[in-house]
Amino acid sequence: MRKQTIFFEKKPKIISTNTIVGPKEGIGPLNSYFDKILDNDKYNQKTFEKSESFMQMYAIKHAMENVGLVDNDIGALISGDLINEIIASSFSAKEFSIPYMGIYGACSTFGEGLTIGSTLVSGGFLDKVIVAASSHYSSIERQYRFPLELGTQPTPTSQWTVTGAGCCILSADCNDNNCPEIDCATIGKVTELGIDDANNMGAAMAPAAVDTTLAHFKDTGRDFGYYDMVLTGDLGRFGRSIYIDMMAENGFTIRNGYNDCGALIYEENKKAVQGGSGAGCATVVFNSLVYKKMKEKKLRKVLLIPTGALLSKVSALQGEAIPCIAHAVSISI
Amino acid sequence: MRKQTIFFEKKPKIISTNTIVGPKEGIGPLNSYFDKILDNDKYNQKTFEKSESFMQMYAIKHAMENVGLVDNDIGALISGDLINEIIASSFSAKEFSIPYMGIYGACSTFGEGLTIGSTLVSGGFLDKVIVAASSHYSSIERQYRFPLELGTQPTPTSQWTVTGAGCCILSADCNDNNCPEIDCATIGKVTELGIDDANNMGAAMAPAAVDTTLAHFKDTGRDFGYYDMVLTGDLGRFGRSIYIDMMAENGFTIRNGYNDCGALIYEENKKAVQGGSGAGCATVVFNSLVYKKMKEKKLRKVLLIPTGALLSKVSALQGEAIPCIAHAVSISI
Repeated sequence: MRKQTIFFEKKPKIISTNTIVGPKEGIGPLNSYFDKILDNDKYNQKTFEKSESFMQMYAIKHAMENVGLVDNDIGALISGDLINEIIASSFSAKEFSIPYMGIYGACSTFGEGLTIGSTLVSGGFLDKVIVAASSHYSSIERQYRFPLELGTQPTPTSQWTVTGAGCCILSADCNDNNCPEIDCATIGKVTELGIDDANNMGAAMAPAAVDTTLAHFKDTGRDFGYYDMVLTGDLGRFGRSIYIDMMAENGFTIRNGYNDCGALIYEENKKAVQGGSGAGCATVVFNSLVYKKMKEKKLRKVLLIPTGALLSKVSALQGEAIPCIAHAVSISI
Repeated sequence: MRKQTIFFEKKPKIISTNTIVGPKEGIGPLNSYFDKILDNDKYNQKTFEKSESFMQMYAIKHAMENVGLVDNDIGALISGDLINEIIASSFSAKEFSIPYMGIYGACSTFGEGLTIGSTLVSGGFLDKVIVAASSHYSSIERQYRFPLELGTQPTPTSQWTVTGAGCCILSADCNDNNCPEIDCATIGKVTELGIDDANNMGAAMAPAAVDTTLAHFKDTGRDFGYYDMVLTGDLGRFGRSIYIDMMAENGFTIRNGYNDCGALIYEENKKAVQGGSGAGCATVVFNSLVYKKMKEKKLRKVLLIPTGALLSKVSALQGEAIPCIAHAVSISI
């Protein structure tokens, strides 16, 4: 039986990260971990799309600056977002003199990027690779659901698209001997169990997260006990409860260390309903909270499982169910 | 100076390809090379989007069948297309039990996929990877430009989006000792010289193709004379002439072996104006004509340079110029 997990003999090191978020994320429980919090989500740009692009640029620029790197040191930039034709990423990439590859995995984008970036570095093809992802509530809500001006009431199972961008730099070497490193990654399959409600992403994505987690555990012989933290992204609170139930049905009882990026980023009972979502969610949670706790050795083994709902407005209007995917990346220090 | 080209010590072999095209492509000069020609571009589906998805599925399924492989033999499927949120690819991937990674590089998608796929195989991470791409005139024209029902006259610089899907299987080993193999790939940078006319993609993309070709020549010490065929995709006839001029300005005179996928796929002076475009264009030209000629040793060294225009309808309506990219992949037998 072919494995879904690829193992990195030479483990890529995460030598730098950066995150930038909007005002709503900035008042959430993770606010002390973010590198930059905007006081207006337009970031002084004419459009929300440009704002998101500038947020990606900010994160990439500062992740490089933090470790004294310039464009010419970076072998490739791998990035993606949720806007049609991922223009936030390509318009951001335009501002750097770095070879670029765009990816699309909806909210799983950061996991896919880490996987591709790790193969490039671990395989000895490139020395340094930047992986970035972003999303923006105001550009995405109107693209997938309703015009913002309509003031539509969110449904009880809905999630709030995170306004934020985050990135990390993968490198063959670590200068300070204190870098989290990626030891393996499980590439997910597309899963679809018939959910067709674009306001219930948690239920649509939970089975994909379960499928990938089970494949990861099978391939590696690990379980929840092996990790200090298993972090799905972004099922939200409702999807998280489905994930816990489905994993239990498959014989894996959740330990204390499980959580979900979408459930962590906003306070409960605020307007975000079930929590955060969007390609920016897992990336800003991992590259702030998780990365900093790993550097401090408060977390040593983390399994990050970004999940993505691969729908579009057209597929939803054509009555199609929502295919979903999740990739699992194991990081340790 | 950091190189843009990654070299594959263990060269991934292309062990199988498959192509499927619409009726218009089927009456073009390459018709004898395609594996399947549809007599209606809806492929008996309800929507054009589903038709494109089924075309991808057809190509993937038959590329596997041709060499006796099943889902479980394939380590990853890497694919992309032009429809918002690449639903043609993810809805196609849903039908296979193969780990999936979606990519977005507009018409450069196949080149990006070959690059990522090659690192996975060459690095020893996976044994077999499928790379696929597609486009469909009827789903794309209305998404980027005008409703089909409007019967809008194409402008003189426009290109015709190819209806077609193509894929290839990369493998660590070749069974019959007669497989084209990938020796290196140059990852492109995003280039933008101010062209903002979505009906003049050739002019927008030619500078990106030039930029990547120059980087490739510099990194490898090669020139046009090294290759039997250098094939950009898809500048069309107008873009091809710009590419030739710009390369000459940079000191590289084009030899006989240069052509462009978009210029090859349709007869001149037919309704396609400057020629073909779309993520399906380079993939159906390479995986039919080029692959078959390589297997027959009529071509031994080929440089494929798929080019992509990274615009969206939103970026065009917001008045943004068109960022472009090109990736170069060197294949030999």
